[in-house]
Amino acid sequence: MSAIEGLIGEFGRLPGIGRKTAQRLTYHLLKGRPEDASRLSAAIDRVVAEVRPCGECGNLSSEAPCEYCRNSRRDASQICVVEEASDIAAIEASGRFRGRYHVLGGHLSPLDGVGPDELNIAQLVQRLAGGITELIIATNPSVEGEATAAYLHRAVAPFTGLRVTRLARGLPVGGDLEYADGVTIAEAFSGRREM
Amino acid sequence: MSAIEGLIGEFGRLPGIGRKTAQRLTYHLLKGRPEDASRLSAAIDRVVAEVRPCGECGNLSSEAPCEYCRNSRRDASQICVVEEASDIAAIEASGRFRGRYHVLGGHLSPLDGVGPDELNIAQLVQRLAGGITELIIATNPSVEGEATAAYLHRAVAPFTGLRVTRLARGLPVGGDLEYADGVTIAEAFSGRREM
Repeated sequence: MSAIEGLIGEFGRLPGIGRKTAQRLTYHLLKGRPEDASRLSAAIDRVVAEVRPCGECGNLSSEAPCEYCRNSRRDASQICVVEEASDIAAIEASGRFRGRYHVLGGHLSPLDGVGPDELNIAQLVQRLAGGITELIIATNPSVEGEATAAYLHRAVAPFTGLRVTRLARGLPVGGDLEYADGVTIAEAFSGRREM
Repeated sequence: MSAIEGLIGEFGRLPGIGRKTAQRLTYHLLKGRPEDASRLSAAIDRVVAEVRPCGECGNLSSEAPCEYCRNSRRDASQICVVEEASDIAAIEASGRFRGRYHVLGGHLSPLDGVGPDELNIAQLVQRLAGGITELIIATNPSVEGEATAAYLHRAVAPFTGLRVTRLARGLPVGGDLEYADGVTIAEAFSGRREM
């Protein structure tokens, strides 16, 4: 296989990148400066060499423990549980949470063979023994995310005095009521607040 | 900058890849097997090391001359002129052309400082002296592509006896007349054929 075909094939293995896009990316790199292409390959090699799951929370990081676990200015009494390490960036962008994280590594999905043992749950239960006062469940607002949240809720029931919350459901800010789905509107009604 | 941020940044420099997609690609590689990520970076390094413009036709290839120029079963009397090396794959997929190619490396675009000297035109004129009987101009059906085709037509006028053609315009196969634009329909009318 030629070098060009090889790279088109590798780009095409990435999610959401079909053959046409893979060709476009390949020829983009070929038309550009060799240094630019080499910088991309070096960046890939660097994450492969450096990035590991944090032993404490499961976040993917070049540091051990990760930047959130080692940051003493973050509230160590709150843990926000997310499905994937990539969810942390979205929460950080909101600027609203200053506690610690815990990454499950996915959601419960019996059909795919993902049960509680496949997720980073035992480690979470162990962390809860250390002075945690609130567990914020931020799994995805999907069927699997809800099932995972419900399972977690039961799993942490022995920790009496632990506050367990989940992120609110409702209308997305900037969204249009007309285009919101019925389930979201129903959630927005049940979660309505005094003005 | 962390390794993860570095890779998100590099992916984000690729065309059509915004920050969200760059994040998704980065975390996809991180969640997958390290070998898969390393194969992508190795494929990039390989094209940087191996691929060069063909000295004969300008096609990007690991071989010199490229696979089309060295293939003696291809008709050496026909040259198909394209803007970019990536256009060759689309033409090869049609299975309709068995001659040689010539890659201009872009189209005339005075506003971007691309004149005839910036394109691989002198080399084309040189090739035409060697027994070429037909020049098929396959520049893009865009304003710049048409201007480039018109320029080429004039530039090769001294070669009397050379047949100069351009790809037909008309309705795309599988398309819907209702959604075709007026210019395309007009071209389809002027190019209509007996049934």
